[in-house]
Amino acid sequence: MKEKFLTFLENFQILTEAERNLIADNTKLISCKKGDILLKEGQVATKCYLVLEGCIREYHLKDGVEKSTNFFTEGESVTSYSSASSLTPSRHYLECAEDCILTVGSHDLEQDMYKRIPRLQTVILQETEKIAGKSQDEFADFVSSSPEDRYRNFLENKGHLFNRIPQHQIASYLGITPESLSRIRKRIHNKSTK
Amino acid sequence: MKEKFLTFLENFQILTEAERNLIADNTKLISCKKGDILLKEGQVATKCYLVLEGCIREYHLKDGVEKSTNFFTEGESVTSYSSASSLTPSRHYLECAEDCILTVGSHDLEQDMYKRIPRLQTVILQETEKIAGKSQDEFADFVSSSPEDRYRNFLENKGHLFNRIPQHQIASYLGITPESLSRIRKRIHNKSTK
Repeated sequence: MKEKFLTFLENFQILTEAERNLIADNTKLISCKKGDILLKEGQVATKCYLVLEGCIREYHLKDGVEKSTNFFTEGESVTSYSSASSLTPSRHYLECAEDCILTVGSHDLEQDMYKRIPRLQTVILQETEKIAGKSQDEFADFVSSSPEDRYRNFLENKGHLFNRIPQHQIASYLGITPESLSRIRKRIHNKSTK
Repeated sequence: MKEKFLTFLENFQILTEAERNLIADNTKLISCKKGDILLKEGQVATKCYLVLEGCIREYHLKDGVEKSTNFFTEGESVTSYSSASSLTPSRHYLECAEDCILTVGSHDLEQDMYKRIPRLQTVILQETEKIAGKSQDEFADFVSSSPEDRYRNFLENKGHLFNRIPQHQIASYLGITPESLSRIRKRIHNKSTK
């Protein structure tokens, strides 16, 4: 499992090999089962997860119904950022949508690593800016798109999830009913095979 | 204008008064007119704006039609984060929706300030985490809400914008037509006056 994390860390060539090893040696790795809950609504998020293998689903509970609001796969990090940064109760649930291998980050680990590798703060700031950018782009895409466009975007950017996630969760994430998703898929498939 | 920025900087009590003054002395302040464009689709975002007065509208252009995707008011910062962090063309437009007073940040200014006030990087990292959290929450709220819920959220969190922004731009941001917005407003108003 550590090998996977070291391979991921190779994306950060600003860090030396010794620094990457130091991070890997000090970061906890966990295996979780499909269905395991990593964070519940109401809890304060104290951990940040990086997916090395598997998929984490973020959802909100609305009147007892789960509304899928995002999916995070290999190479993506997730926590409830507002909860973690303001120490307020999370509004999100985070659940393993598949069996997962994850790294577990915490505030204390971060502070300890910043002391030992001061440049790491620059790396984390850049990564956090990228996460902010991704959320800004996803929100803008969603707001400005029709359900059919959203489906096309999803197919383009997260198409691999179709074989990993139940259709009703994908429909929920696209803000449509499973029946609408099915109709859109048929319509697009018919167009592309004509 | 500088007084307003200094008042904003008082939110960061981790910084000394001398450090806050240093930042204010080195940060460019600009006045913009309603309608001024700060960033266009296709440009690389090299500036980050903090709104001291006024409102910036973020929008996407889809088949020649403007789709409003966010609004930023007093105390909020905005750029195209994915463009700025990866030096790729922006997909967003940023336009002054009102006459504005803004601070203008840049990569060079940031780097210079980090050298002179190393703790500032911690402040910026925390602020960036908050921005990521806000985007994550807004996206999840939008995905998991009906148009009527979205309107209620908007009323609760950004209600002051109703007197500042044209209705059709608000409707666009809520992902509905101006006619639907008008119907929802009437329905809710009727319920609350019964």
